[in-house]
Amino acid sequence: MIKIYGKNCIYEAIRANAKLEKVFVLDSNSKKDKSFLDMLHDKKIAYEVLAKDKMDKLFGASHQGYGAYRDSYHIYDEAFLNKMDEAFKRVLILDGIMDPHNLGAILRSVDAFGVDLVILPKNRSCSLTEVVAHVSTGAIEHTKIMYINSLLTAVTKLKDMGYWICGTDAKGNTLASEIDKDLKLAIIIGSEGFGMSKTLVNQSDYLITIPMVGHVNSLNASVSCAIVLHDLMK
Amino acid sequence: MIKIYGKNCIYEAIRANAKLEKVFVLDSNSKKDKSFLDMLHDKKIAYEVLAKDKMDKLFGASHQGYGAYRDSYHIYDEAFLNKMDEAFKRVLILDGIMDPHNLGAILRSVDAFGVDLVILPKNRSCSLTEVVAHVSTGAIEHTKIMYINSLLTAVTKLKDMGYWICGTDAKGNTLASEIDKDLKLAIIIGSEGFGMSKTLVNQSDYLITIPMVGHVNSLNASVSCAIVLHDLMK
Repeated sequence: MIKIYGKNCIYEAIRANAKLEKVFVLDSNSKKDKSFLDMLHDKKIAYEVLAKDKMDKLFGASHQGYGAYRDSYHIYDEAFLNKMDEAFKRVLILDGIMDPHNLGAILRSVDAFGVDLVILPKNRSCSLTEVVAHVSTGAIEHTKIMYINSLLTAVTKLKDMGYWICGTDAKGNTLASEIDKDLKLAIIIGSEGFGMSKTLVNQSDYLITIPMVGHVNSLNASVSCAIVLHDLMK
Repeated sequence: MIKIYGKNCIYEAIRANAKLEKVFVLDSNSKKDKSFLDMLHDKKIAYEVLAKDKMDKLFGASHQGYGAYRDSYHIYDEAFLNKMDEAFKRVLILDGIMDPHNLGAILRSVDAFGVDLVILPKNRSCSLTEVVAHVSTGAIEHTKIMYINSLLTAVTKLKDMGYWICGTDAKGNTLASEIDKDLKLAIIIGSEGFGMSKTLVNQSDYLITIPMVGHVNSLNASVSCAIVLHDLMK
């Protein structure tokens, strides 16, 4: 079980019919947001109205008046790859994203730009924490997420299934806008500090680069990811 | 004076010849990063080597072994608009960005995508704090930033100077990729919660939208900003 909090996060969990043990509402919100309480009644979800000090103690400073106890997120495993049909046009592979803010921000873009599955390695990855959920503003509720032992195995499998592997690298030679959007694509985003692993670079059919000017010459991983997903959206 | 910290942040400040009262280096870094100390010697910058507990106390948990006391950032004022020549092709207007993480992330994209000036309203804006500097990974050192009383005055002035005003709005009707990149452009990004103010929407020559699918149907302000700046880069 995890604690989730924040208005969008709780709303999306309810909309997605997530299993919520209990919802908590700040007393002032319970008065002004009647539609929220109606929704809880309709869906027969237990809730409790709390004073601010109790909400803060349970959910920290960023609850915006809404919190819940939620079952842990459903994690897909490798076997699911065999069940994927032609509707799965976009797979995102995160090669070493450790920062929960980055992962949360990425899940928000994943939802916005129509990614069908996110794959992370079991080691070297951030797990699905309450911070990830909060930063995703609830997008995590609508995303299929798989943790896997070996990204190389996944990439090999995806190639066999007809996916084109799109690595991303500052030294790449392809613009995302040049890639045929009708293809089934597996996009790989590397870690903030070290980029993609060499093994996966070698497996890539395309190496996407984002043209930049300026002095610092690097982008935040979640920003790079959003730009590439946006450019590749079908 | 402000305290800045983080490897990139300190490196960029030194490269940009920022006025640094003193630099602080973690003892273990002072041994393995000789080129850094050489740079300090060359530039005649005073420094002190500190143990981890003292670095943590001075700079918090995210210093990565590097910190400094820095003069406050130079802020441009309205008068600078009169000095801008034809080289200023891209101006970014931030209409109510309050979150230092968002502002820092935006400054990183500003540097990467060649924005020549950033304008913020004196009220309703995050100021240039150490968190902004850190999240910008030093990009703040290479960016011209102006705080101004009235964004409407600035927009009117920019129109007179030949800029096309590009608002951004979920209800917009123009893709950034459709806009002529040879034009001088002033791009407006609204606040996280409320978007652009109505007054500025009315002043816009274009209203840019970012196509999205999905459930949550909104992007983080810094992500929207990066996508639009990327699409409009000359």
